[in-house]
Amino acid sequence: MIPICSRLFCGGAVLGHRISQSHIGPSPLRWFSTCQRSHAHRDYSLPNASWSRNTQELYRKYEELSRGGAWRRIPSYNSSVHHIADFPPEESRVTRLFTRNHDQDGVGFEYSMFYNTAEKRMICIFQPGPYLEGPPGYTHGGCIATILDSTLGAGVVYVSGHVMTANLNINYRNPIPLGSTVIVDSHVEKIEGRKVFARGQIRSHDDQILHTEATGLFIKLNQWDVERPSF
Amino acid sequence: MIPICSRLFCGGAVLGHRISQSHIGPSPLRWFSTCQRSHAHRDYSLPNASWSRNTQELYRKYEELSRGGAWRRIPSYNSSVHHIADFPPEESRVTRLFTRNHDQDGVGFEYSMFYNTAEKRMICIFQPGPYLEGPPGYTHGGCIATILDSTLGAGVVYVSGHVMTANLNINYRNPIPLGSTVIVDSHVEKIEGRKVFARGQIRSHDDQILHTEATGLFIKLNQWDVERPSF
Repeated sequence: MIPICSRLFCGGAVLGHRISQSHIGPSPLRWFSTCQRSHAHRDYSLPNASWSRNTQELYRKYEELSRGGAWRRIPSYNSSVHHIADFPPEESRVTRLFTRNHDQDGVGFEYSMFYNTAEKRMICIFQPGPYLEGPPGYTHGGCIATILDSTLGAGVVYVSGHVMTANLNINYRNPIPLGSTVIVDSHVEKIEGRKVFARGQIRSHDDQILHTEATGLFIKLNQWDVERPSF
Repeated sequence: MIPICSRLFCGGAVLGHRISQSHIGPSPLRWFSTCQRSHAHRDYSLPNASWSRNTQELYRKYEELSRGGAWRRIPSYNSSVHHIADFPPEESRVTRLFTRNHDQDGVGFEYSMFYNTAEKRMICIFQPGPYLEGPPGYTHGGCIATILDSTLGAGVVYVSGHVMTANLNINYRNPIPLGSTVIVDSHVEKIEGRKVFARGQIRSHDDQILHTEATGLFIKLNQWDVERPSF
């Protein structure tokens, strides 16, 4: 099994299934040899020039809250292997994390997550860019599922160690305009054996509009249980 | 209301909500002015050099079935407005459809859909590229949600006219390796008033692995009901 830092969560799809070393080496990717390499270790959770005033204001609010120690910003990279110890050198990787796969700031997923240990709560400030379109002018439903999977899953990791997604159940209430700022607010509800249940909402930056509601079921991967992170 | 061709489905997020003209003009996108323009009207459902042998073989199978008239390939563009009549000229658009937002073939979503009218069935041949990574070497759970939303939703459009997604419920069974070929197989189960229920599975190209199961609830948008497509 691969040594994965338990802070890693990148959107999973497994129940009672393990990732073997043979699956994470270059073999599944041999079919593709011309794509560009990932950036090295830039932390994408930090503000950039594409962030709107609303996005910046929410970020500053949680940055301020983090000074008190209750919250903490979660770093974010464009390759999942940047979280993995002893992984083959960067040159061998051609993959990119789905939510960080564009070179240009602002066109795709712009987001930053903060975690509250006492409340088992992960929030994500999210600004969907113009390359995430579904209905004209609005964010694609699959993109909304993606930021929910990422946020709920990341919160679960901080409670239970490494997990992968087993179920996502999403109710779409109001569409999310491209370029708007929303906040994903999630928390862990309960744990039953290897099952971890989480719940989340997406609301507008000013809390006036409920955009989406979701529940997630995540399965603990036994060999990583001991790697639960702590602050 | 905007005149949208009823063949359009791009991943929705609405229940009892309408998209007004004011939301689809340039105003939601004024915040972003530096991104590149979409390609014009390339049909991305056609094969390209990045497709693996398995992807090509499945495509040829359904292309052959389409000759008999039971199946039909669904065109696919990189901007939802290419499906919309009387929309402002291309120069004013800076958005891209979420599933077609990379310039380079093969790095993102490679897929082609075929529809069977008699069976109310939409299938999608899908090859996830290396920029869709979640767990190392595997497809992101949100990416899987995206291709499910797109396939189930597109099938619903051919039965009931224009819709948007109200609920997606996804069970992740086995992870999908990047670069593999899978098939999304969906159908409409029932219609109750404005509610349309669909169901789908993702299986490996050789039908040996069940990767994912999902149900979707879609809501008919009344003003487009009369635009139901027919072959």
